Amino acid sequence: MERELIAWLRRHLPSHPCLRLGAGDDAAILHLAQKADAVVTADLLAEGAHFLLGEATPRQVGYKALAVNLSDLAAMASKPVAVVVALLLPRSGALQLAVDVITGMLPLAARFEVAIAGGDTNTWDGPLVVSVTAIGETTPHGPWCRRGARPGDRLLVTGTLGGSRLGHHLNFEPRVGEALLLSEKYEIHAAIDLSDGLATDLRHVVEQSGCGAEVLLPAIPISAAARRLAAMEDDAQADVRHALCDGEDFELLLAVAPREAERLLVDQPLDVPLCDVGRFVDEAGLWQVDADGQRRELSETGFEHRADP
Amino acid sequence: MERELIAWLRRHLPSHPCLRLGAGDDAAILHLAQKADAVVTADLLAEGAHFLLGEATPRQVGYKALAVNLSDLAAMASKPVAVVVALLLPRSGALQLAVDVITGMLPLAARFEVAIAGGDTNTWDGPLVVSVTAIGETTPHGPWCRRGARPGDRLLVTGTLGGSRLGHHLNFEPRVGEALLLSEKYEIHAAIDLSDGLATDLRHVVEQSGCGAEVLLPAIPISAAARRLAAMEDDAQADVRHALCDGEDFELLLAVAPREAERLLVDQPLDVPLCDVGRFVDEAGLWQVDADGQRRELSETGFEHRADP
Repeated sequence: MERELIAWLRRHLPSHPCLRLGAGDDAAILHLAQKADAVVTADLLAEGAHFLLGEATPRQVGYKALAVNLSDLAAMASKPVAVVVALLLPRSGALQLAVDVITGMLPLAARFEVAIAGGDTNTWDGPLVVSVTAIGETTPHGPWCRRGARPGDRLLVTGTLGGSRLGHHLNFEPRVGEALLLSEKYEIHAAIDLSDGLATDLRHVVEQSGCGAEVLLPAIPISAAARRLAAMEDDAQADVRHALCDGEDFELLLAVAPREAERLLVDQPLDVPLCDVGRFVDEAGLWQVDADGQRRELSETGFEHRADP
Repeated sequence: MERELIAWLRRHLPSHPCLRLGAGDDAAILHLAQKADAVVTADLLAEGAHFLLGEATPRQVGYKALAVNLSDLAAMASKPVAVVVALLLPRSGALQLAVDVITGMLPLAARFEVAIAGGDTNTWDGPLVVSVTAIGETTPHGPWCRRGARPGDRLLVTGTLGGSRLGHHLNFEPRVGEALLLSEKYEIHAAIDLSDGLATDLRHVVEQSGCGAEVLLPAIPISAAARRLAAMEDDAQADVRHALCDGEDFELLLAVAPREAERLLVDQPLDVPLCDVGRFVDEAGLWQVDADGQRRELSETGFEHRADP
């Protein structure tokens, strides 16, 4: 099977200027830019844990497996270069499944000029597992890290948040271009991509930056999907909770000094909106501030309903 | 669980000069040597497909998952730099299992100065899956590829072959140091690591090199384990079959011009023996030559018993 897959890959994987040697040898050889460092991230999707075939097609799984990795590179303001893909395939229909998964990656790989450089293929008696490792390169303007947010920094997010499971989680655009543009033109102190939800991912940033943050609930850009979910639940306040906690938004969260944030918010240099949703503070922890200015702790699981009086 | 694992990793993973940013951010940042290219390979081990817990300890699984990747880098004469590790863990005892797997990697990582740079951790209802991606750098003397063997080249192998399942497959030494030494001091035309057995891996080399090869059966360095297996099977000829077909030797197979091969065989510059086991030929295909000089095709599954007269 691996032999047929490599033959298919050789016919269908485009060449790439960085790729000195692609799929079919013991390893791939990548040429990175002079003076660049390699940026490396891995994300694995397993049937049953992260997706169900039937709810998602193999192509969608391939798309997502690549996209979540590119989102991690975006969070570092890194230019994607290549990915390697390790597959675990159920024995029955393994080749077609592998071809479908890789086919799902191809348009995204082409759009972001990412080489599919190689990998590993195995069959077994278990379900589909897609393990992707993405390699990017630093630019003269990067990288961004989670640490680096400073008290006083504004907390900006791209796009709208929440309700990803209604579809966004399978077709989101990793914010690679946005990150590269922002890192080139603006000074960003810290960044993360929103994979686990604002409430959780912001915690990673404040913990690594040694500070805290306040989120202004009314300022959160709530997605139409989050509103739809809230309407289905017949709970008007649920939309904010979805925006804080659902995860898989794959938008960028940025820490930016106040004056630079102002410039960004006026410029709005991206095709997606940039919103100011709060600020970093000295005091460790996460806080939510509601429309009335009331401030309380933001729990690990995100939004807490205001206790009725 | 991931949070506890990252805390453990921070305490237990050594720092590394190449590692500008390690585990715990969206990606790791690696500094490669100036003028080096990045060499990238992935290999995944899954319980049930590649190992059984009970037959192998989690530490042995971790060791092997790293070692097979380093063996691929060795086959490219690449200097290992870092690995990223994606884990799929059964829910019960996930943290301890992850710690054990990584702990199994640590001595090997230390010996070859490889940074464990980061990765991804997931729990699910399935068995243990360990997906490792290794990143190396080219040296001024490399890389080696599978293509490049020329008719007339001698076919050399390191170490002894066969019977790996008696233990070698869990504790082999990837031939990283050997490959770097050979690439620095000798001219090697092509190389591969013996993961699927000489009969299969040699086929990859001849196919990519556009030639064929003849294996001299009496010249094959047969391991003690292969002899033990043959004795257990009460079949004196079985030892050669084991040496040709068992796989997981993780020795190096090299294509070397005749005069350079002579120099290598006289020098014996490695701590393991280097043996001449045949030659590359114009005619496509693989051939076996027995002690009587009889030449026949070497089948896909390796050694074929000589038909009794």
